[in-house]
Amino acid sequence: MGGDLGPKAVVEGIGYALKRWPERQTRYLLHGDEAALGPLLLKHPKVAAVCELRHSDTLVQMTDKPAEAVRRARGSSMWNAIQSVKSGEAHAVVSSGNTGALMAISKVILRMKKGIHRPAISANWPTPKGHTVVLDVGANVQCGATQLVEFAIMGEAYHRAVFGGEHPSVGLLNVGQEELKGNDIVREADGLIRNSGLDMAYKGFIEGNDISAGIIDVVVTDGFTGNIALKTAEGTARLVAGWVREALTSSFFAKLAAGLLALGALDRLKRRMDPRYINGGVLLGLKGIVVKSHGGADGEGFASALGLAQVMAKSDFMSQIRKNLDKFASFEEQDIAAAS
Amino acid sequence: MGGDLGPKAVVEGIGYALKRWPERQTRYLLHGDEAALGPLLLKHPKVAAVCELRHSDTLVQMTDKPAEAVRRARGSSMWNAIQSVKSGEAHAVVSSGNTGALMAISKVILRMKKGIHRPAISANWPTPKGHTVVLDVGANVQCGATQLVEFAIMGEAYHRAVFGGEHPSVGLLNVGQEELKGNDIVREADGLIRNSGLDMAYKGFIEGNDISAGIIDVVVTDGFTGNIALKTAEGTARLVAGWVREALTSSFFAKLAAGLLALGALDRLKRRMDPRYINGGVLLGLKGIVVKSHGGADGEGFASALGLAQVMAKSDFMSQIRKNLDKFASFEEQDIAAAS
Repeated sequence: MGGDLGPKAVVEGIGYALKRWPERQTRYLLHGDEAALGPLLLKHPKVAAVCELRHSDTLVQMTDKPAEAVRRARGSSMWNAIQSVKSGEAHAVVSSGNTGALMAISKVILRMKKGIHRPAISANWPTPKGHTVVLDVGANVQCGATQLVEFAIMGEAYHRAVFGGEHPSVGLLNVGQEELKGNDIVREADGLIRNSGLDMAYKGFIEGNDISAGIIDVVVTDGFTGNIALKTAEGTARLVAGWVREALTSSFFAKLAAGLLALGALDRLKRRMDPRYINGGVLLGLKGIVVKSHGGADGEGFASALGLAQVMAKSDFMSQIRKNLDKFASFEEQDIAAAS
Repeated sequence: MGGDLGPKAVVEGIGYALKRWPERQTRYLLHGDEAALGPLLLKHPKVAAVCELRHSDTLVQMTDKPAEAVRRARGSSMWNAIQSVKSGEAHAVVSSGNTGALMAISKVILRMKKGIHRPAISANWPTPKGHTVVLDVGANVQCGATQLVEFAIMGEAYHRAVFGGEHPSVGLLNVGQEELKGNDIVREADGLIRNSGLDMAYKGFIEGNDISAGIIDVVVTDGFTGNIALKTAEGTARLVAGWVREALTSSFFAKLAAGLLALGALDRLKRRMDPRYINGGVLLGLKGIVVKSHGGADGEGFASALGLAQVMAKSDFMSQIRKNLDKFASFEEQDIAAAS
């Protein structure tokens, strides 16, 4: 029911997902207002054929504060959708709704995995070679060093689960100048990752320009910096796209050129620059798969989030994450024992 | 003597600056090794005609730590160049050298303006409408709320001085989700700016994607986030430029299109995406104008930093900044008096 376009984006998104991945036999539980969803399904019979509608009387508003949402959410479409993962009816939940509420209700219903303090939101960041996983992109605006280590563990397992790499490389986002080796928390996290015996290809500090370069598989940062980096990149891509568009419409010759380009290359360029194709952040660290679709996503965008949820559900992320979490837990126990 | 290309970029940079702004009657004191600079000036007689060479025996290495650099720097080219601003011989200093050392030595020789704790580095960020000033982009990795207010005051005055706007708008960089109103420091700074009676068009919180959008004139953030945002934007622009290049060389038709575009629009696009044309960060808050050119800048890039130093030297930035600094100082005094 959430997001700027509401149920329309969801139903159309399922339609696009069916077209994009016809081989995946995904079925959907649609939680929401029957009066809104029913007519949409009538218009999209192919979507209706793979959906089961579950009516809910209430919904979480985009403006609800997380704590309020948790108190009032029982029986809402968001609550019921997450509950269907808890009960085992669904393998994953995808929502365009209120991010803070989604996180808070997921924590209440699904609970955190042992050894993880709070969920982190991941983003799949395009590079010339594929994708870099960046986390946290907005769940935790104030992080301690231990949380950054948890993000590294989750991000590494997530990269293996979604992109299938064997030993994804992990970097900690920091500032570049030699004289400024970053703030205390980043330095402490660097020491923790190096010393806690994790099974991880840890590469140390990386800089902002490395994210898009494709030289690192997983970028770890706090939710404040990560959110700003992600949105700054979106803004920059939009700026450059505007310049390209201007260049392609600036004169008769330019328009002719654009016409020639449209025969193929420009379409590919447009698609690459289209954030809808990389939509979907996973709330990592929960005992269940929760995917957040961008609130502004349309059907194309929502389909990308559905595709990501499908890949996560098929993967062994949940078990992959365990080994390093256990290693870190025993390192921390030794550390506490040594200190006392 | 600093930067990846050393004195060559500096001497060629003066040459480019002479061509770009033939009407500016700038003269240059070149501080450095005579044996390196002398032959370069012989090759560039037009540059030599506006330069005076000042030999120095030593130089600050790119790898020197700031504290070391300050102890050992007396008599180095960097020290002497800053000293020539202090003595009034020069209106501004431009350096491609070690940023940390430049900042530390500038603080020792020029000293901070009253009411400013540490220098901030500004960046002129391109937008569809012109430029947004972003600071701090790397001088202070850990900032308190008071420092962010100082950045706002300096950035606002800087925008008026360099871009000539009357009431530049100022925003505080923060994360977007409703449920996460940013960390404690950003929230505290927001309150301070709102309550301290500054003469400033303060717009509150803005998000990462707003930086490139041209909807705000001055973006205030700590040096950790600012540095990462700037480098992330550079990386993103490079990624998109690669996609555009690929689109323009992907087929016969694409190459033909690129040939047509090269008749004009593509050149403009290339120039807009060329970071050399926006090179130069000012170290704000000192009693003197210090411009840092990017270490990797070539002659074209260095010329941009020179151009910025010229504009700053001509402007009344130093007096513009005073009014709001005094207002903030008296607000803080009242605040302390009220608390005791």
